[in-house]
Amino acid sequence: MTLKSLLLGVVSVIALSGNYSALADDVPSISEDALKVAAELRDEALKSSKGYDIVESLTTEVGPRMAGTPGDAAAVKWGVAKLEELGFDKVWTEPVTFPTWKRGIETAEVVAPYPQPLVITALGFSVGTPEDGLTAELVEFDDLAALEASEEDSAKGKIVFIKNRMKRAKDGSGYGPAVSARTRGASEAAKKGAVGILIRSIGTDSDRMAHTGVMNYEEGIKKIPAAALSAPDADLLENMLRRGKPVIVKMTIGAKQGKEYTSHNVIGEITGSEKPEEYVIIGGHLDSWDLGTGAIDDGAGIAITTAAAELIGRLPERPKRSIRVIMFANEEQGLLGGKAYAKAHKDKLDNIITAAESDFGADRIWRIDSKVKKEALPVVMEIANLLKPLGIEYGNNKAGGGPDLIPLRQLGISVFSLRQDGMDYFDYHHTPNDTLDKIDPEALDQNTAAYVVLAYIAAQMEGDFGGGFTKEQ
Amino acid sequence: MTLKSLLLGVVSVIALSGNYSALADDVPSISEDALKVAAELRDEALKSSKGYDIVESLTTEVGPRMAGTPGDAAAVKWGVAKLEELGFDKVWTEPVTFPTWKRGIETAEVVAPYPQPLVITALGFSVGTPEDGLTAELVEFDDLAALEASEEDSAKGKIVFIKNRMKRAKDGSGYGPAVSARTRGASEAAKKGAVGILIRSIGTDSDRMAHTGVMNYEEGIKKIPAAALSAPDADLLENMLRRGKPVIVKMTIGAKQGKEYTSHNVIGEITGSEKPEEYVIIGGHLDSWDLGTGAIDDGAGIAITTAAAELIGRLPERPKRSIRVIMFANEEQGLLGGKAYAKAHKDKLDNIITAAESDFGADRIWRIDSKVKKEALPVVMEIANLLKPLGIEYGNNKAGGGPDLIPLRQLGISVFSLRQDGMDYFDYHHTPNDTLDKIDPEALDQNTAAYVVLAYIAAQMEGDFGGGFTKEQ
Ligand SMILES: [Zn+2]
Ligand SMILES: [Zn+2]
Repeated sequence: MTLKSLLLGVVSVIALSGNYSALADDVPSISEDALKVAAELRDEALKSSKGYDIVESLTTEVGPRMAGTPGDAAAVKWGVAKLEELGFDKVWTEPVTFPTWKRGIETAEVVAPYPQPLVITALGFSVGTPEDGLTAELVEFDDLAALEASEEDSAKGKIVFIKNRMKRAKDGSGYGPAVSARTRGASEAAKKGAVGILIRSIGTDSDRMAHTGVMNYEEGIKKIPAAALSAPDADLLENMLRRGKPVIVKMTIGAKQGKEYTSHNVIGEITGSEKPEEYVIIGGHLDSWDLGTGAIDDGAGIAITTAAAELIGRLPERPKRSIRVIMFANEEQGLLGGKAYAKAHKDKLDNIITAAESDFGADRIWRIDSKVKKEALPVVMEIANLLKPLGIEYGNNKAGGGPDLIPLRQLGISVFSLRQDGMDYFDYHHTPNDTLDKIDPEALDQNTAAYVVLAYIAAQMEGDFGGGFTKEQ
Repeated sequence: MTLKSLLLGVVSVIALSGNYSALADDVPSISEDALKVAAELRDEALKSSKGYDIVESLTTEVGPRMAGTPGDAAAVKWGVAKLEELGFDKVWTEPVTFPTWKRGIETAEVVAPYPQPLVITALGFSVGTPEDGLTAELVEFDDLAALEASEEDSAKGKIVFIKNRMKRAKDGSGYGPAVSARTRGASEAAKKGAVGILIRSIGTDSDRMAHTGVMNYEEGIKKIPAAALSAPDADLLENMLRRGKPVIVKMTIGAKQGKEYTSHNVIGEITGSEKPEEYVIIGGHLDSWDLGTGAIDDGAGIAITTAAAELIGRLPERPKRSIRVIMFANEEQGLLGGKAYAKAHKDKLDNIITAAESDFGADRIWRIDSKVKKEALPVVMEIANLLKPLGIEYGNNKAGGGPDLIPLRQLGISVFSLRQDGMDYFDYHHTPNDTLDKIDPEALDQNTAAYVVLAYIAAQMEGDFGGGFTKEQ
C-alpha cells in the first residue's frame, strides 16, 4: 500500500460513512524472491513440529481455560510468556471485559418408568435448577422448528427434549442447522410452558459425553435450565419414549452467572521492516470450554498461527509489513475478544492488510477462500499455487475469515479462510474429549505451512488486498 | 449319551476322585436331518434381529446393573420376564450370594505445578480416601513389573502412577498382560510405601473416559485407594512429569464395601424331548459395571444366546436334549454366578453336554474353538462346516468357553469358544461408553446364527463331546 492509497483509504472511510475503504490504485503483485522464500518457509514448516510443541505446552501447562476462570488468567500469562520465549518483537495484551458464567453440579436421571442415570452437561449461560433438582415429564420434539410449530401449551410443566441429529460434513455445514436447538431452544421451550430443556448434543459422535456450548435467553421470556444429553443418552430417551409410557426425568444444574471479568487479547508481533504499521492478522482464540483441555478448540489455532509467525521471525530479515498473532479472549461466549479488538482498532483498519483465524480443529486444510478486491486475485492465485503441494485448492472469493474476525470483517477488512477438514471436528467439539491426543502433529504442520505462506506473501506483496467489503460479495 | 455311558460316567466320577468323566463308548455323530435343520436355523437367525430387540430391552428398561445394586434386582426380574415372554419351557432362578461394593464420589486433580482436573474412576473394591481427599506427589512406573522391581521405599508417601498401555488385538490378547496393573497394582504399590494408586485405564481407546474393573487387595497388605485415569489424562500426567517438576495430585474417592447381597442366576430352558435331563449351556452374564448400560458387556451375550435358544424353541419339535440359557449373576466382581452354578450342579456334570458363553462384546465371530474328546471332532467339523458361510473358521481343541464357565471347565466339562472380533471391544469395556449404539444389529445376528448351530447340533447329536478335561489339552 502506497502513502497515496493510504490517504485515499482514509478519505474513503469518511466518504463511505463506514470505517474502511482501501481501494488502492496500484496493481497488487508479489516478487519472485518472495515466492521463493514463501516456498522455503512452507517446506520448513512441514518439518518443524513447532505447532505441536505449542499446543502440547498450552494443554499441559494450562489446560481448561473457560472465560473468567483461573485457567483464563493462566492462559493469558502463558500466551505472553510463550510469545516472548519465541522471539516475537513486541508482545502485549489488550483488555476484554465480559459477564461470566459458572458451571456447577450437573446430573440427570430417568425417575420413571426405567430409572437410570443420564449424562448431561449444562449449556453456557444456563440458569440453574432448584438445588434439589427439577423433576418433570419429558416431551419430545424432532427439532427446534417442530417445537416452534407446536401449539401454545405443548410443553406446559414439562421438560422439552429436542432430538435433532447433526450431520457430519467436511465443511462443518451440519452445525448451523443443528445448533439453533442449543442457542434458542430454551426460550422457545419456555414460550410453550416448559420448565426445562434437554437437547441431543450438537455433535457427530456417539460417545457418552455431552457437548456444551453457549445459549441465549430471549429478552422477556422466562429463563429455564438448559442442558445437552450425550448422543447415547438421547438415543436412550427416544427408546424409552417409544414405549408410550410417561418418561419422568430429574435434572439438577448448579450453573449460575458470575461477576464481570476482564481478560485480555494476547498479541505478538513480528514487526515489519518497511511498513511496520501495516500488518497481517493471524490467530486463534485462547479461551476454551471447561470440559476438555481445549486442544482442537482452539489450542490448535493458537499453535498453528504462532508457529507460522515464529518461522517468519527466524528469517534473516524481517518481512516488509508486520505480522500479528492474536490470541483472542473469550470467543466461546460471544466473540468478546474479536469485538474488543475491532472496537479498539476500528480507526486504523487500513493498517490491516488481511486476516485469517484458525478455529476449526487440527485436521488438514483442503481449501483456501479469499475475500479480496478483484485486482488482487492474481496474488491470491500465487498463494494458492504455493499451497497446491499441501493438497489445498482454491475455493472462492467469499471467505468468512473465522469467528473472531466477524466484527472486523463487518467493518470491511479483507480476509482469508484456510479451510480445515471438519469431518471429525464435531466428534470432540466442546466435550471432555477435546484433548491433545486428537491432534495429528503432521496435520498441524500442514496447517502451519499454509499459514506461513499466506502471512508471508501478505506481508511482502506490493499493493494490497483491498477493503471496504461491507456487503457480501 | 446312552444310559450305559451315563452310568459309566457316574462310576468314573467316583473312580477318578474328580467330579466328572464321560468317556462314552459310542462314536459321536450327527444326522443329515439335524444338519439341515441347523442350516435353516442359522439362516433364520441372520434375518431375525431378535438379539438386538433383547439387548435394546435390557439396556433401555434396566440399564446399569452392577452386582448388588437395584439394577441387579431389576435385571433378574427382567431376565425372568423376558425368558417367559419368549416361550421358554422352564424359567427359574438360583441364588448367588456375594459381598458388595459401592461407588461414591470420584474426582482427581493436579494441584501443582499445573492445576487441572483429571478424569478417573475407582476400581471395583477400592477403599475410599479420607473424605477431604488424599494429596501426594506422583511417582511413575512403566508397568507393574517396574513397580515390583523398584526399591523398597520407591513410592513412600506417594501416589503411584502406572502408565502401561494395553495393545489392541483381534483376540483380546493385549488384556492379560496389561490388566495385572489393575488387579494387583494397589497392593504392590502399598508394599513400596504408596498411599494411593492411579493406573492408565486398561483399554485401547483414547477417549476421556476411565475404565473401571475389579481389583484385589493382597492379604496382610495395607489397602490403599485405587483408580484408573482416562487415556488422555494418563498422557497429560506423562507430559507433566516429563518437565521434571514434582507433580502433586489430589484424589477423592468415596467408594466402600456394602453389605452381603443375594442375587440370582436366571435360567431359561428349552426342554429336550428325548433326554430332557441332558443339556447344552449357552449364556452370558446379566450383571454389568455401573458406568455404562452394559450393552456390549454383556447385554450382547445375554441377547445372542437367548435369541439362539428362542429360535430353537420355535421349531415344530423340541430338540432331543435340553438347552439352557444361563444369565449369570455377578461375573464382573469375581465370577460369582459361575461359581455358584458349578457348586450347585457339580454332582450332575454328566448332564452337561457342552457349554459356551458369549462375553466378548457384540462384534462378529471369526473362529470356533472346541474342547472335546478326539472321537467327537468329526461332529465339531460338521459344526464348523455350518459356520463357514458366516465367515467363521475352526481354530483348535483348546477352547476356554468363557469366564463364567471357568468353574465348570475346571471340573472337566466340554466347552466351545465362539470367538468374537475384539478389535474395538476394549475401546468401550467397563466405561460409560458401553451403550447400545456400539452394537451392530447384523453382527449380533451373525452371533446368534453361530450359537443356534452349536446349540442345536449339541442337542441333537448321537453320543457326546466327552468330559473329564481337568488338565489343559
Ligand atoms: Zn473455537
Ligand atoms: Zn463381561
